[in-house]
Amino acid sequence: MPHKKPLILITNDDGINAPGIRTLIKLMNTLGDVCVVAPDSPQSGMGHAITINDTLYCERIKVAEDQPQEEYSCSGTPADCVKIAVNEILKRKPDLCVSGINHGSNSSINVIYSGTMSAAVEAGTQGIPSIGFSLLDYSLEANFKPSEKYITQIVEECLKNGLPAGVVLNVNIPKISEKEIKGIKVCRQANGHWSEEFDKRTNPLGRDYYWLTGKFVNEDKGEDTDEWALENGYVSVVPVQFDLTAHHAIKDINNWEL
Amino acid sequence: MPHKKPLILITNDDGINAPGIRTLIKLMNTLGDVCVVAPDSPQSGMGHAITINDTLYCERIKVAEDQPQEEYSCSGTPADCVKIAVNEILKRKPDLCVSGINHGSNSSINVIYSGTMSAAVEAGTQGIPSIGFSLLDYSLEANFKPSEKYITQIVEECLKNGLPAGVVLNVNIPKISEKEIKGIKVCRQANGHWSEEFDKRTNPLGRDYYWLTGKFVNEDKGEDTDEWALENGYVSVVPVQFDLTAHHAIKDINNWEL
Repeated sequence: MPHKKPLILITNDDGINAPGIRTLIKLMNTLGDVCVVAPDSPQSGMGHAITINDTLYCERIKVAEDQPQEEYSCSGTPADCVKIAVNEILKRKPDLCVSGINHGSNSSINVIYSGTMSAAVEAGTQGIPSIGFSLLDYSLEANFKPSEKYITQIVEECLKNGLPAGVVLNVNIPKISEKEIKGIKVCRQANGHWSEEFDKRTNPLGRDYYWLTGKFVNEDKGEDTDEWALENGYVSVVPVQFDLTAHHAIKDINNWEL
Repeated sequence: MPHKKPLILITNDDGINAPGIRTLIKLMNTLGDVCVVAPDSPQSGMGHAITINDTLYCERIKVAEDQPQEEYSCSGTPADCVKIAVNEILKRKPDLCVSGINHGSNSSINVIYSGTMSAAVEAGTQGIPSIGFSLLDYSLEANFKPSEKYITQIVEECLKNGLPAGVVLNVNIPKISEKEIKGIKVCRQANGHWSEEFDKRTNPLGRDYYWLTGKFVNEDKGEDTDEWALENGYVSVVPVQFDLTAHHAIKDINNWEL
């Protein structure tokens, strides 16, 4: 029995010192041997960016002296962290990769912009069962306590059952008290998009610049969606795939004169 | 008849001066009114990154005096370019967004790392029919001539037929001569992944750093895939969706004890 305890890789996109990842490390230390490889600075909105035209630094650090996990701080994106962890740092393929806990929602279309989920997807492409966790609270002082029991439960079930090939999980947790959370719902991604407004300003040298602002628009009233679950007090679990083929559309396009 | 000619938005991830986008502009000028909003510098491997913690510049420039298109150079990512084009620059929603021609492949799993495709997907989320084009040649001196007739044909068909909601196209073109290209195949995304190797070096100050290198591994021998089409002399067209839900996995996960 060389590997009695599961090997769990942890990363995130808010940076290695963010409260969300510290909570996730604490929880995972009770379930397995933990190795943390996380960005040295916040990487929100990085999507599935990777570092191909620049150097990568990745150094062992010790954030908390009294905790058992190995920790590495990496200059790259969340997807870079997974690549370097799997190929340079870990001696064997991890049994699980968990990413987060993100400070802010990755429900609905947010999944495509999410560094947290890109790390989970990257691990998925390497054949590693993988889960991204997000709390619907952008604050650095977010209360992660109500999330803890659900995260532990989902990770335990994932370690027990595994995940279908080509599938990772996108877990979002509503910003409500432990008592108010009604349970967990397996959902589909709600059909929504961002409606942008740009805040146009002029810099001290007279040059115009913009801040990206915007609001999320949910066009999807389905009760089987992550948005519905979160609005109604449930933790949402969406199985996410990285085969992006719209299989249903192949027939349509085959009718074109190509 | 206020809009006789279609309004076509063009962007890319190799930057506004790359030969690939200049070819695409030339072709689109024969099909519609063209507005270019593209990154001021190369953005390869940016995935669906967006700029949320930094300012965005976006300025009108004139690259080619003798051409009719409007052009804007943007400091952001490909996804930023689409957002700012649609919400700040264009007076109406474009009839089509085309991204590319990328210098290098975006077939198979490369789609998730691709700035070219993230721009197309971003436009898709805004309800705009959208296509990303890539040539399997990373060179700045790539020969885009054999691509031209296929790009024109695909764009004409897309303008005529539209695209199903939630679907954009990922078009890849093999690096072979016009005579050798056998035609166009509508495909699914091949199941492949990147196997990384990190090139570890030491900088002049004695600190270790890494270059990300790796090779693409195609596990998928299916003859209905983009990889098969490209290897066999076809232009590949994959319909891509941004509903990432693995619908087939919902039942599995519902069997967990959650």
